[in-house]
Parts: sequence; structure tokens; C-alpha cells
Amino acid sequence: MAAEPVWSVDPRTGKPREQVAVEATTEDVDRSVRAAHAVRETLADRSVRAAFLRTAADLLDGAREQIVETADAETALGAVRLTGELARTTAQLRAFAEVVEEGSFLDIRIDLPDPGAIPPRPDMRRWKIPLGVVAVYAASNFPLAFSVPGGDTASALAAGCPVVIKAHPDHPATSELCASLLRRAAAKAGLPEDVVVLVHGFDAGVQLVRHPLVAAAGFTGSVRGGRALFDAAAARPVPIPFHGELGSLNPVVLTSAATEERAEEIGAGLAGSMTLGAGQFCTKPGFVLAPSGEAGDRFLDALALGVSETGPAVLLDRRMRDAFVAGVTERTALDGVRAPVTPGAGDAHTVSAGVLAVDAALLTEGDRHHLLLEECFGPVTVVARYDSRDEITQVLSRLPGNLTATLHVATDADEDADAAPLLAELTPLAGRVLVNGWPTGVAVAPAQHHGGPYPATTSTSTSVGATAIERWLRPFTYQSTPDHLLPPELRDGNPLGLPRR
Amino acid sequence: MAAEPVWSVDPRTGKPREQVAVEATTEDVDRSVRAAHAVRETLADRSVRAAFLRTAADLLDGAREQIVETADAETALGAVRLTGELARTTAQLRAFAEVVEEGSFLDIRIDLPDPGAIPPRPDMRRWKIPLGVVAVYAASNFPLAFSVPGGDTASALAAGCPVVIKAHPDHPATSELCASLLRRAAAKAGLPEDVVVLVHGFDAGVQLVRHPLVAAAGFTGSVRGGRALFDAAAARPVPIPFHGELGSLNPVVLTSAATEERAEEIGAGLAGSMTLGAGQFCTKPGFVLAPSGEAGDRFLDALALGVSETGPAVLLDRRMRDAFVAGVTERTALDGVRAPVTPGAGDAHTVSAGVLAVDAALLTEGDRHHLLLEECFGPVTVVARYDSRDEITQVLSRLPGNLTATLHVATDADEDADAAPLLAELTPLAGRVLVNGWPTGVAVAPAQHHGGPYPATTSTSTSVGATAIERWLRPFTYQSTPDHLLPPELRDGNPLGLPRR
Repeated sequence: MAAEPVWSVDPRTGKPREQVAVEATTEDVDRSVRAAHAVRETLADRSVRAAFLRTAADLLDGAREQIVETADAETALGAVRLTGELARTTAQLRAFAEVVEEGSFLDIRIDLPDPGAIPPRPDMRRWKIPLGVVAVYAASNFPLAFSVPGGDTASALAAGCPVVIKAHPDHPATSELCASLLRRAAAKAGLPEDVVVLVHGFDAGVQLVRHPLVAAAGFTGSVRGGRALFDAAAARPVPIPFHGELGSLNPVVLTSAATEERAEEIGAGLAGSMTLGAGQFCTKPGFVLAPSGEAGDRFLDALALGVSETGPAVLLDRRMRDAFVAGVTERTALDGVRAPVTPGAGDAHTVSAGVLAVDAALLTEGDRHHLLLEECFGPVTVVARYDSRDEITQVLSRLPGNLTATLHVATDADEDADAAPLLAELTPLAGRVLVNGWPTGVAVAPAQHHGGPYPATTSTSTSVGATAIERWLRPFTYQSTPDHLLPPELRDGNPLGLPRR
Repeated sequence: MAAEPVWSVDPRTGKPREQVAVEATTEDVDRSVRAAHAVRETLADRSVRAAFLRTAADLLDGAREQIVETADAETALGAVRLTGELARTTAQLRAFAEVVEEGSFLDIRIDLPDPGAIPPRPDMRRWKIPLGVVAVYAASNFPLAFSVPGGDTASALAAGCPVVIKAHPDHPATSELCASLLRRAAAKAGLPEDVVVLVHGFDAGVQLVRHPLVAAAGFTGSVRGGRALFDAAAARPVPIPFHGELGSLNPVVLTSAATEERAEEIGAGLAGSMTLGAGQFCTKPGFVLAPSGEAGDRFLDALALGVSETGPAVLLDRRMRDAFVAGVTERTALDGVRAPVTPGAGDAHTVSAGVLAVDAALLTEGDRHHLLLEECFGPVTVVARYDSRDEITQVLSRLPGNLTATLHVATDADEDADAAPLLAELTPLAGRVLVNGWPTGVAVAPAQHHGGPYPATTSTSTSVGATAIERWLRPFTYQSTPDHLLPPELRDGNPLGLPRR
């Protein structure tokens, strides 16, 4: 069988730009994983790993113009956004270099022997070791920060795990470019290039998660694709951890007091957040509980005004555009759904943003409107108008897990009696709650948590921030092991000066 | 349909002692989970949780005589062992009370806002919150420390999760007794008794892992049972974490130098370790690589002598006795397998310990001898005689994951050239490696890790030690949340004086 070509496509025109690669065959996938596995020990030295991550950041920054141009041509995300995303990506690589050097991620715990204890306590030294080859499934919507040089790759390499990356078909040229830079950085740091391997193709992705030498996987994408890979990971003879970020509705609740206080401001803010990046952020607020009545009307008017002022948007690819048009059409057709701004197709290659509205009461019973409680990727949000506190509770109890949940309360929150109980109701639904803010724009910071109850993530981990490294490690204890046989990190006298307990 | 009775059985005679309970129906399981779920918020207060765990330890210690007598009558493990196990169990409950109070398990990270940063950094405060109801599947071989009042229960309650425990059928009376003491402790601490609920029955166990309100599960038991439950947990509409400890061969490697130096001492030590508790420890050394030749013969003679001197043993139940007899018979019948001490049936209710030996070369190709590389629960170990270092490597490459791996090297390890490379080869195979020791006897200490690559565990976690609490928590971040809406643990000024980053 001839190898399937992999084309780079311009979403602004739908036209193929160039053939970038061919899809990996079963043999290619096997060869890729074995190549990465064969060089895993070369990542054992933490200072080499840190140098590699910094060199990768430097090479990516050095190729900024070419990367941004290539990524924009494939994703239509625009040079400004992509320049910012590249800066975030290289900052993330450098941050993980620091994490590797600082060493507290090793979670070293030393118990000196106590022969007098009952029973006698042996010498035990625990740290964390890398799992092995990590399969990384790149996302479409962040062609850099959640793709080839993104958080999964950076954290896995930081942990000492080689990566085999399954490129996203929406930006294969960007993927090839970034992978070649990462491999060049490896060589410059004295490592084999095969600590980073790139493969293309849907089937290759499925084979990857089933490969016996793949030890863990990271994924960012749809519920459907992610769940299929999660199931394959769990069904292996030896199951492996699958850290997937699948989908999130990101509910927003407006209290009556907040809406009375600043309906217009909230409406305008939401319009900006839900249309940011053409509504293709994983934290896009896709569902809003707003009060019925006059203040709620003013909020909805402001939201509609803001959304109607956004121009047509190019989504990441044709399939997403078609899925958006189909998704909003199906939702708009539901009994009782109004469209203050009708979302749908723009010209042949664009979509127009929209707002749907419905009475919350319709969502509290039966399954006829369940679609409104599912993520619709792209620039649309659903506003459910509630008549009572009890309706909010009932609707929230029907929501799936989310990355974020947002609560708008009166500025003087002390005065808003709904604030505390609603915050408590939102907590089980999300990994991050925000008060009087917007969930898009995920700060890279130590207290960040980018994860949440299923389907937001398939594990209790985060894919953003320093603790993302924990996903690719396992604890390991040396008992009664002579000092010279221990890794230097665990030896007497702490020769490397690492944090220990 | 009449409820199925649950009998307590004396393994020394095979006779039923008393009917203890009835098996839970589907409705019973649903009611149990809902009851536990309904009271989950009562565990939010850490000081109440700590008091509860200490009260539970006190009540268990206070009922020592009755607990040991009941457990011995059901398990034949003997009063000395069970008294020690109870002390370990109550020490573990008290240790978790300290963990709860100390608070570093909350992993609090605070990022103060930085409006000058690009992009501006919001106020973010992260900690860990409990997952919800935890299903605990009790083990047979530790009727206290890995059963109703054991590590899974203690760590889940410490995390703030109510537990629904599926009793092991080998000690239902002990389970009922311990559960009633835990429930009484809850009441004494001002908590609803339903923070701990006990159910009996195989079907109940399956229903439990599928219940929508069960948020995570902990399991200690067989590969077959554990894998079935793992699969059910992964196949749920909303998958849940399943922390299972399934089985472990616990390989031992003797270098030539170690065997030359102290063949008799190692043989006698191994005989003690593999027959401890009738070979029913999860860390029993079940497979040994020993050199061929004279020194290896002396080791095997010493091992055989030690094992032949142990009397007949009562296993935990009839099914295990029959499985042991069948397992050793099947292994002994394999081509090329010798039996320096023949394991098998004792009288109608006992088994006799044994040692099998085989040339390592037979294990390096084909699958005919794969059974020798699988755990056989009970007092038997397999000694594979190697002719070369290369044979060791080949056999190790065929082993499944383990809780432990043990290496015996020359006392002056500097002089033993095999020590470092063999330690490196054992590392990927286990969660804990020991040098010149024995793996039975798992110290409860901060650096302990009781877990390992599959099938030793189904996750990268530990079921022993303080970090076991991490299994029942997930990170959660508050962004831009007014101080009075935050839990006291995260408020400005750190009013509770907790460790924070």
C-alpha cells in the first residue's frame, strides 16, 4: 500500500499548501517507539536535560518568524496570537529547565536506619524515576503551547522521558518544523535526536497508545478521540496512565446581585472571552446561568451586542467549521431555544459567532435539551435564564466535569448572599473556579491547575504548570543499598544539595 | 430471592463458625453509597477527621483481645502475628491523624496577583480537595492492616472521603467487628456513622465500582479480580481512578560473589522470608536467580533445609489451599523442573512448603515455562540456576512488574562488579529494591514505597505510607476569590499556620 500523504492546508481558503510528510505505518510507529526507548538512559543526567530544554527554547525563539508564518498559514490564528503563544511555549520550556535543576520534583525522602525500632527500621531512600517513553497527542487549537513543543512534551522531557509525538493534522508543517528544532536542540546538548520523534496519521496514534514500550500518554483534544485512546490505554495487557484533557463547558453563573450591579460590563466581558481565538479555547465559557427579568435582559443585550460586532472567523479546519455549523444548527432548532445572535456559517470558509438563550426550566428535567449542556467548539455560548436559586442548583447538578467554573457576584461580595453557597456548588464541577473574571487566558503559575473532573481530564493531574511533570514519574525506593550504588541524588551528605525530607 | 448468607469459616477445620451477615443486594449497595455520599461534607473539618482517626485507633486497641481472637479463628494467622498487625494498623490510623493536622498533604500554593506582569497575573490559590466516596476492597492476607481498618480506609478518611468497604469473604466477622468500631468512633467524634459503610458479596463489589457516586477505588488482591474491577472502573461513563495492588513475584538475584561468600546464610534467610505467614505476603520472594555450580548448590541445600524444617501451614481459606496445591503441581510437572523440597498438600486442611529448581536457560526462550514467572500464592519459591550474566539479563527481561526486587551482592559491594549493572536492571522491574535483605516486612516510614509496575499496582501510587493519601485528592484552584469566600486554609495571613508555597 502506498504511504498516505500528509498535506498542510490553508483554512482561509481550504487549499492544500504543500505535502509535508507521509502517514506512519505500523512499522514506522514501532521503529519510532523503539528508537525513543533505546535512548531513554541518555536523559538520566538532569543537567543535560536542563541544557536541552533551554537550547530548545532558544532555537524555537530564533526561528520565531518562520514558525509564526507557518503556523498562521495552517491555523489562521494570526501572527499576534501565535507570537504570544510561542513566547509562552519557550517560557514553559525554560521553566521546566529550572524545575529539573531545582530538583524538588524528585520528592526525595530519606529514612536513616533505626536498628533499635520495633521492628528495626532499615535505611530507605525514595525518589521518583521516569516512566519511560511518553506518547504525546498534540492539540489543534494551540499549535505550539499544546502541540509538538508544548506542555506535555516539555514536562515529559523534564521528567527524563523520551517522547513520541503524534502530530495534529491541522498543522503538520508547524509540527515538522518544531520537531526538527527540538531534535537539533537535543543534538546540540549532546543527546541523541531520538529523544523526540514525530509521527503523523490517525492509525499511527492508535498504534502508539497500544505499543508495549509506550509507558504513558498525554492528550489534548476531543471527548470522542480522547476517550477512544483512553479506552485503548486501559485495555492493554499492561495498562498505562493516560492523561487526557478532553472537553469542557466552563459554566458561568451570574448572581442576581451581580447582574443588577453590572449587567452591561459582564455582557461585554463575556462576549470578549467567548469569541477569543474564535471560541476555540478549551476554557471558553460555553454555558451561562443568568437571571430572568430586566437586569438579565440588559446582560443579554450587552452580550449580543458584543458578539454581533465580531467579524466572521476562520476555524482551525474545515471539519471544525462544519461541526460548528451543524452543532449550532441542531441547538438552535431545539424547542424553546432563542438566538439573540444567530451563530452559523459565514462565507464558504468562515463562521459567525452567536448567542443562544433558553429558559433554565427546560434544562431541569428530561433529556431533550442535553445538547445545550455539551461543549460546542467555536464562538457560541448558551445563556440559560433562571427564575430561582433552586433552578440554578438543579441545572448545575446536571453538568459534566469542567476545567473551569466562573461565578459573578456583587463587587462587595459580603453583600451577596448567593456567593458562598454557589461557590460551594461549583467546586465539585471544576478544577478551577474564578470569581468576577473570565476563564480564558490560563496563567502559567505555580498555583495554576488546568484539569478537572471528567471529561475535562481523564486523571486528577494538570497539563499546565510545574506539577505537570508528576504525570511521568513513579516513586522508587532503595532499601539498605550501599552508598556508592545509589544515584548521587540520594547519597549520604547530599553531594548535589537537593531538597530532601 | 432470599439474601445469600455470609458465613465465617474456620480454615483450620473448614467448618462454618457462624453466619455473620447477608450479601448486599443491588439496592443495598446503592443505599450504602448514597448514605456515604450524603455525609461527605461532614468530613470537611480536618480537626474532626484527626480526632475520628485517633478515636478509631483507641477503640480498636481497646478491643484487641476480641479482634485478635476473631481474626485468628477466621484466618489461622495466629495471635502473635495478628497482635502485631493490629498495632501496625492503629499506628497507621494515628499517623494519618498527624498527616491531616500537619496539612502539607494539601499541597497549598499561593500566587499573589501581579497586575504588572504580561499578561497580568491574577490571585490564584491552589490546594487539594477530596474526590468523594471511595470504594475499598479488602485483602485476605492482612485482615486488619489491608482490610476494613487498613491503609486504604485510613488514607481515604484522612483525605476527607467517606468509604464503602467491600469485606473480604475470608474474615467477615473480623470485618463486621472492625467496621462497627470505626462507626462507633465516628459517632464519638461527632460524625455520622455512614462515613464508613461495610458491604459483603462478590456482586456487591462489582456494583460498587460501577456506582455513579463512587469517585475512586482502592483494592488489594489477585490479578484476576483486580483486573476485572480495574476494567469496570475504566469502562464507566465517567471513569474513576482505580488504585489496585494485584500481584508480585518479587524476584531475588544472587551474584556469584554473594553466593560464594555466604551461600548458607542467604539460603536460610530466604527460607524464613518465603515461609513467613505461610508465604501469603504480597512481598514473598517467589523467584530466585542463583548461580549454577558448587556455591549455588550450597545455597540451594541451605534453602531446602530451612524450608523442609517448616511444619504444615494453614492457608487463609480452602480455595487458596486448593489453588496452591494445583499451582505447585502444575509447576512441578513442567519439563526440567526439580523439587528439592516438594510443595503440596499436607493433611486435608494444610499445605507443605516447598522449593522448585530449574535451569535458567529453560526460561529464556519460548513460553513453555512462563508459569514459573507468575506469582504462586503460598509457601513456595522457584530457584532458576544461571550459567552466565547474560542469562540473568535475559530472564529479567521476561519478568512482569513487581512490588520489590532483591539483590544479594558481596558484603564489600565495591568488590562485586555485578552489583551496579544488576541494580540498574532490577530498577525498571520494581517499586522498591533491596540490597542484601529480604522484602517481607514492609516498614511504615516516609521513604517507603509499596507499589510497582503493573501488575504489582495499577497506578503509580503507594498503598503504604503517608503519600497514600494523595490517591484520594485532586488539585483545585481558586482564582480572584474574595478572602472571606475562601476556606480558612487558603486565606490571607495563613490563620491556620499551614505549610504553603
